[in-house]
Amino acid sequence: MTDGSSDDDATPVVYRLAPECTVEATDVGERYTATVNGVVEYGVFVDLSANVSGLLHESVLPAEADYDVGDDLVVELTEIRENGDLGFELYEGDDYAIEERMFAYDRTAAGALAGRTGDTVHVEGEIVQIKQTGGPTVFRLRDESGTVPCTAFEEAGVRAYPEIEIGDVVHVTGEVEEREGALQVEIDALETLDAGAAEHVRARLDASAAERATPADVDPLVDWSAMRELYPDLQRVARRLRRTVLESRPIRMRHHADGDGMCASVPVQLALERFIERTHEDPDAKRHLLKRLPSKAPYYEMEDATRDLNFALEDQTRHGQKLPLLLMLDNGSTEEDTPAYETLSHYDIPILVVDHHHPDHDAVDPFVDEHVNPYLHGEDYRVTTGMMCVELARMIAPSIADDLDHVPAVAGLSDRSKASAMSDYLDLAREAGYDEEFLHDVSEALDYEAFWLRYSAGRNLINDVLNVGGSEERQRELVPWLAERAERDVELQLDAALPHVEHETVDSGAHLYRIDVENYAHRFTYPAPGKTTGEIHDRKVEETGEPVITIGYGPDFAVLRSDGVRMDIPQMVTELNEEFPGAGVSGGGHLVVGSIRFVNGMREEVLDALVSKMADAEIDEELHSTLTR
Amino acid sequence: MTDGSSDDDATPVVYRLAPECTVEATDVGERYTATVNGVVEYGVFVDLSANVSGLLHESVLPAEADYDVGDDLVVELTEIRENGDLGFELYEGDDYAIEERMFAYDRTAAGALAGRTGDTVHVEGEIVQIKQTGGPTVFRLRDESGTVPCTAFEEAGVRAYPEIEIGDVVHVTGEVEEREGALQVEIDALETLDAGAAEHVRARLDASAAERATPADVDPLVDWSAMRELYPDLQRVARRLRRTVLESRPIRMRHHADGDGMCASVPVQLALERFIERTHEDPDAKRHLLKRLPSKAPYYEMEDATRDLNFALEDQTRHGQKLPLLLMLDNGSTEEDTPAYETLSHYDIPILVVDHHHPDHDAVDPFVDEHVNPYLHGEDYRVTTGMMCVELARMIAPSIADDLDHVPAVAGLSDRSKASAMSDYLDLAREAGYDEEFLHDVSEALDYEAFWLRYSAGRNLINDVLNVGGSEERQRELVPWLAERAERDVELQLDAALPHVEHETVDSGAHLYRIDVENYAHRFTYPAPGKTTGEIHDRKVEETGEPVITIGYGPDFAVLRSDGVRMDIPQMVTELNEEFPGAGVSGGGHLVVGSIRFVNGMREEVLDALVSKMADAEIDEELHSTLTR
Amino acid sequence: MTDGSSDDDATPVVYRLAPECTVEATDVGERYTATVNGVVEYGVFVDLSANVSGLLHESVLPAEADYDVGDDLVVELTEIRENGDLGFELYEGDDYAIEERMFAYDRTAAGALAGRTGDTVHVEGEIVQIKQTGGPTVFRLRDESGTVPCTAFEEAGVRAYPEIEIGDVVHVTGEVEEREGALQVEIDALETLDAGAAEHVRARLDASAAERATPADVDPLVDWSAMRELYPDLQRVARRLRRTVLESRPIRMRHHADGDGMCASVPVQLALERFIERTHEDPDAKRHLLKRLPSKAPYYEMEDATRDLNFALEDQTRHGQKLPLLLMLDNGSTEEDTPAYETLSHYDIPILVVDHHHPDHDAVDPFVDEHVNPYLHGEDYRVTTGMMCVELARMIAPSIADDLDHVPAVAGLSDRSKASAMSDYLDLAREAGYDEEFLHDVSEALDYEAFWLRYSAGRNLINDVLNVGGSEERQRELVPWLAERAERDVELQLDAALPHVEHETVDSGAHLYRIDVENYAHRFTYPAPGKTTGEIHDRKVEETGEPVITIGYGPDFAVLRSDGVRMDIPQMVTELNEEFPGAGVSGGGHLVVGSIRFVNGMREEVLDALVSKMADAEIDEELHSTLTR
Repeated sequence: MTDGSSDDDATPVVYRLAPECTVEATDVGERYTATVNGVVEYGVFVDLSANVSGLLHESVLPAEADYDVGDDLVVELTEIRENGDLGFELYEGDDYAIEERMFAYDRTAAGALAGRTGDTVHVEGEIVQIKQTGGPTVFRLRDESGTVPCTAFEEAGVRAYPEIEIGDVVHVTGEVEEREGALQVEIDALETLDAGAAEHVRARLDASAAERATPADVDPLVDWSAMRELYPDLQRVARRLRRTVLESRPIRMRHHADGDGMCASVPVQLALERFIERTHEDPDAKRHLLKRLPSKAPYYEMEDATRDLNFALEDQTRHGQKLPLLLMLDNGSTEEDTPAYETLSHYDIPILVVDHHHPDHDAVDPFVDEHVNPYLHGEDYRVTTGMMCVELARMIAPSIADDLDHVPAVAGLSDRSKASAMSDYLDLAREAGYDEEFLHDVSEALDYEAFWLRYSAGRNLINDVLNVGGSEERQRELVPWLAERAERDVELQLDAALPHVEHETVDSGAHLYRIDVENYAHRFTYPAPGKTTGEIHDRKVEETGEPVITIGYGPDFAVLRSDGVRMDIPQMVTELNEEFPGAGVSGGGHLVVGSIRFVNGMREEVLDALVSKMADAEIDEELHSTLTR
Repeated sequence: MTDGSSDDDATPVVYRLAPECTVEATDVGERYTATVNGVVEYGVFVDLSANVSGLLHESVLPAEADYDVGDDLVVELTEIRENGDLGFELYEGDDYAIEERMFAYDRTAAGALAGRTGDTVHVEGEIVQIKQTGGPTVFRLRDESGTVPCTAFEEAGVRAYPEIEIGDVVHVTGEVEEREGALQVEIDALETLDAGAAEHVRARLDASAAERATPADVDPLVDWSAMRELYPDLQRVARRLRRTVLESRPIRMRHHADGDGMCASVPVQLALERFIERTHEDPDAKRHLLKRLPSKAPYYEMEDATRDLNFALEDQTRHGQKLPLLLMLDNGSTEEDTPAYETLSHYDIPILVVDHHHPDHDAVDPFVDEHVNPYLHGEDYRVTTGMMCVELARMIAPSIADDLDHVPAVAGLSDRSKASAMSDYLDLAREAGYDEEFLHDVSEALDYEAFWLRYSAGRNLINDVLNVGGSEERQRELVPWLAERAERDVELQLDAALPHVEHETVDSGAHLYRIDVENYAHRFTYPAPGKTTGEIHDRKVEETGEPVITIGYGPDFAVLRSDGVRMDIPQMVTELNEEFPGAGVSGGGHLVVGSIRFVNGMREEVLDALVSKMADAEIDEELHSTLTR
Repeated sequence: MTDGSSDDDATPVVYRLAPECTVEATDVGERYTATVNGVVEYGVFVDLSANVSGLLHESVLPAEADYDVGDDLVVELTEIRENGDLGFELYEGDDYAIEERMFAYDRTAAGALAGRTGDTVHVEGEIVQIKQTGGPTVFRLRDESGTVPCTAFEEAGVRAYPEIEIGDVVHVTGEVEEREGALQVEIDALETLDAGAAEHVRARLDASAAERATPADVDPLVDWSAMRELYPDLQRVARRLRRTVLESRPIRMRHHADGDGMCASVPVQLALERFIERTHEDPDAKRHLLKRLPSKAPYYEMEDATRDLNFALEDQTRHGQKLPLLLMLDNGSTEEDTPAYETLSHYDIPILVVDHHHPDHDAVDPFVDEHVNPYLHGEDYRVTTGMMCVELARMIAPSIADDLDHVPAVAGLSDRSKASAMSDYLDLAREAGYDEEFLHDVSEALDYEAFWLRYSAGRNLINDVLNVGGSEERQRELVPWLAERAERDVELQLDAALPHVEHETVDSGAHLYRIDVENYAHRFTYPAPGKTTGEIHDRKVEETGEPVITIGYGPDFAVLRSDGVRMDIPQMVTELNEEFPGAGVSGGGHLVVGSIRFVNGMREEVLDALVSKMADAEIDEELHSTLTR
């Protein structure tokens, strides 16, 4: 206990005990305010707090004294007897200072309640979720050791402590109980801490979170300068994601629905799930804190963003959850993403991007908290998002490492990466039992399943196909067959389309091929127009061995691919818009891949103009077509 | 207690007590049937009911008497001693009439069970929900004071009291208990009341419901004769909706997915939620009893009705809920709605309509219970549904009033209402801090979000944008940006479309504009063809200042707008059908707005004929284009 | 107890009791290993097991003996006193064989726990579901009498007994308790049985399941040789389905979304639900174990299979359910189904097919466990799937029989069956109160509702329309009106289409009609192109009374129907593909009905060639058009 004595020349101190104080808060020799609660023959009984009482024996009271219940006195504690009784004397000085003595309690860590059932404990921390049930209100409290649900009952279905909000730092007093096998605290008292105490708790939480958020100290799977350059950026994202989990903020992951996008998102999903399992007691936390969602478009559509925001606000309202963090993988780095980002920017929804598409970073970066992209380090799309995200997953949950050795190679094959590290990645995969042909089949199978799953994540299926968190046995069974189906469907599509491909040799000497994929390919089936165009292009490149441009067009869109020709698609879009004011041309891309849209009725004009622009595009034999978006 | 004595010359009455009767059901001087349940030296013990027993002392028994357990006697109650013991004499008359005395119990109000935990109580009321859980059966009982769940356990998952149905009026005896903080009654006995008693309870429920269903006594926000005319109709709808809530019948709200439709539905949703909160203890009641659903089409589609019915029947089967009431807002008053209505008419699903589109009320009214529409009072679309529904919301939950001052103005701007009250509404909004430009932006933002939300209600987002049940701060942030996006997207659409608009001056002197919105506007994006046509029309009206007709057409539809020209669309549809038997022309509209459909292959013929009909349409400069449907 | 004595010349036996053994496992005269657990003046206390202890009195111990706690002895049980105390002597032989005595327990049947609350019991059986809750782990155990949930708590949300898997045969010791009114066993101990014991349990389960899976012994509703031929096949399917229910494996039912498909699936659904109710205590079992899903396409689409598999894997992961059995009704017997089947074949998902479409059974049968099809018995499509499935439903739950008398007639009318039994079926329906016109209306109403329900099963609505598990009253109300709507919509469609039907007389003398259903019929409404074509065809057959071929085509498909002309569609597809390499022709059908697909841009060429092939098709006046697929 604090020393109640004071310097001789100082004003004597008299303590006023907070009602919750017990005898632990007293010390012999200290003085206290007291209230008479009983008058008997041999003295008066006084209360110092709701829990501390004692006797002022008649021997220490003035003879003439006449006390009534309710009278206020000042007493000095003279003795604590063996049986716990307290002995007091009257303090008769009248020049003293009163100090409040708050209830001093022993804080119990939220993560250390096991074995304490039935005890009354004190926990302190941040409220991270508030859920109103049909009965009590459940406050989920987080401290540096973990989280614990604390329940308060006001009236059936009525919000207890309505003044408490998510993010408040509080002190809960209550009894530990077990409910359905899980520990919780039944609240006796809940109060926000004052600013100083709260800051102290927050500092403790921050220090702890900062420590626990530190990414695992891993080295790149293969020695590769490009990846080394990106490592600090990935570490920042890993730290941010771990921290997000620790703060019980949900993560909504949006990824490109193709092979590389799957190779990026599935390992990160699995790693985050493992980290959530380690840091949250609630076995449902994995489901509540993480969602993986494929995006059909090669950018973050307004419709998806509106839907994401709508769900987030509903989870906030109905389940008292924090708004989520958005993690964009293999998508999200271009100007087309910004309208969706700006919608979210009006809400507390941080955005992280890991992508390898050519970024419009001036447009994007104002909206995102982290942006990892090889182009920001002078590298390019050859560092695929899958390669980066395998490293990211290992930083989040290093125990996952062994299961991912084959993934960067699949990612690279999916996006036809010509990265220098590809041979190392293929070696790594080979050591894990994967030959190149099988890896290629995995990539085709991922693409094929992504198509049929449409807006569904297909968690279990994809985990089996990729064998990340799935079954290797099923992978070995499924992949060859899916790859064969995919190949067969591609053949069927090409059988229909190839006879209708139109060829010309343009001024630059490049071959230019056009195909009407709406009229000469099957609709609503695999492969979709973009991939169909890509497959045609690849065959033509192989056939000719010379610079090739391929245009696959539908009623109001065209997909562009090139090999050995440098396309400046943004420039072409600008020009087409000037030349055809009523054509509504938009679109984008980078050097060897792109797409444009226009209004149906202006298709002929736009395509003809596009072709004549292509005729002047610069030949650059180093350029090779890459990922289809 | 009833007086057991009778006229001297009447047959004496002997009461047979029902088994549940307690000593409360007895009176000194009355006679009762009794059964010997013990024979002792000093007399015999008798039972009058399961709860009422006493001694016939040997002194009052005939000397020669020889009683055995089970013997039936008639006794007279002579005394109730201080200790509660009853004293009896033998009644030896043999000319008497036996009357059953039912158990007289003190009814406890369902809403007054707080503090009664552990007590056995009697509640009487109507069963409004029956839900079979994996354990007990839960009967939700409603009396005039509220509702309470009553649980009965027959066998795990087996329906207790299978003869009881929703709507039965019952008497439940049981113990009050608290479960997860909510009060419920564990049923000891549940029986349907006989016809007389049930009628009594129903009368009590009706009287109470009638009283509680009475709409709040509010006055129109602005003094406007048109609204005063509509007030009695709106009050009837308010009463009906309040009553529906009180009867625990779910409400399914379908509304036009545009600005006025949002201004109509969101306030009513919020008001109903507040009323549900006040009248239902279950905090989930809001979710179970109310759904707001946007309709994409300007009428109630068969597909939506089929889906609604399917969900309703499923809720009935799975959750034991009543079938819902359907509330149509800013939609539902035309002949096109009737097939859907007729499907529902085979089920117990009342329909209420509040709409301001030109009604086909002969077709619609046979199917709907209430139909509020300004045209039924000689007014027109200028009284928007949002304006009416703000009044409706205030009648349902007057506490909402302060939050709605800006809504009628938004509704009016959304539908370009030229109502005389618009300036008052704008003043009202201005006092609430909204200038006209901002209100206009709110209306554009609502339209824009409605488009991206598609079939989702987007509750939280829309509440923020409209700032009804949302956050003003977020409104101030979101609206300007959404409005700007909407405007930008409109510009992009018009950039593409305007160069392709075809112009001619028809015989009447009006300008006629045509645009192929399928071929010369972007598809699947904002704004959709209807709005695109409307925007083009508005510009042309402004440019020319003369009568204008605009036709926006796609493969099998055309959207029609006019200013200063009176279109008789139903007549044109009839004529087109006669002239082109294989064109499958249908559609409708009113004076300045409409749409028609036809088969793709007959488009040219239909459009040309339509244009020549338009050429003869009467000029009426008073007519101004209004809401786009 | 086993007799512990042995032949005089045999090695004496000493038993080592398993720790769980109680005094029940001992017998006077037997010898046991024992451990000293206390040394007192008058002797030593020994433990034979955790539950069996006793005293070796000093009188029976050697004088010089000096025992310490923990010493191992061999003792002979000499006495069980009235108070339960055991008396032992020391056994001093040293040539003995030790035998383990396992804990012998009385097994309680899982279905016989009622009234045993609070008792510790032993149950043995197969684990059929493992569900991790936020608290305990729930193991659902099945024995020959039923299933019971057994709960084990390791730590909140942590999987107890992680080594136990679905399908393990185990012995659970635990206390019977009631939770929310349902019985469960709180596990004290759970262990897998050793191979021998497990085999024993499995044999018991198998014998019981085999018996309980035996289909009800019913006779066909009408005496019909075709159905008699199919009966053994149907019985095998019935047995398999009953067994699947008994094994708690979910059933996923996919059916053609037309009249016959509904008549097939709804009775089987209802019968399975009844059987589930009878064999599973959990009232939610019906929902978890059975899903009925309409398929829009006339074959099992990859997208549906992918979705089905995805849901199945998710149910397995999240709810610990077995993978489902797939039951294909009125669909599933053609080569087009095989890609989907092959995807599923990599998982433990058995497939049963009941269909009456012309089967490609060489292609299909490798993937399916049962395939019932009239063509496999020399019969044809005239035996509709609905007719077969009514028999199947009666085999599964004979109590359903009375409710199905009208269903085969509806099925037959839906598919225009010319079966010889039709008149018997119509008689049967007439006896049940259905005249032919009303049955026809039911078939139209089913078709109409199936269209609007799209991907939803619409359980309650369809049950009402068909009056199987629904309300007859509502059937009588709904059907005439829905049939009238359906007819009106057909008329509207034909009004538009008929003027555009093109006619020619081909070489064979047959009439050939073509209609562009994309351009001359309303899109996205009822009837869809296939039915529209069928309706046109039917009218032309009636008008002409001569052989007729009808082709309804859209951008990339054609629907084919014939009467009196034998079409060899597979042959035509093969030829078309050879003649037009870039047309991507595919499709199939049988004699009088079929469909083909092609790429849009080759439509003219393909259709012209198709027509000229039709010109040579053989006239066969016996052939009549049948079901529209």
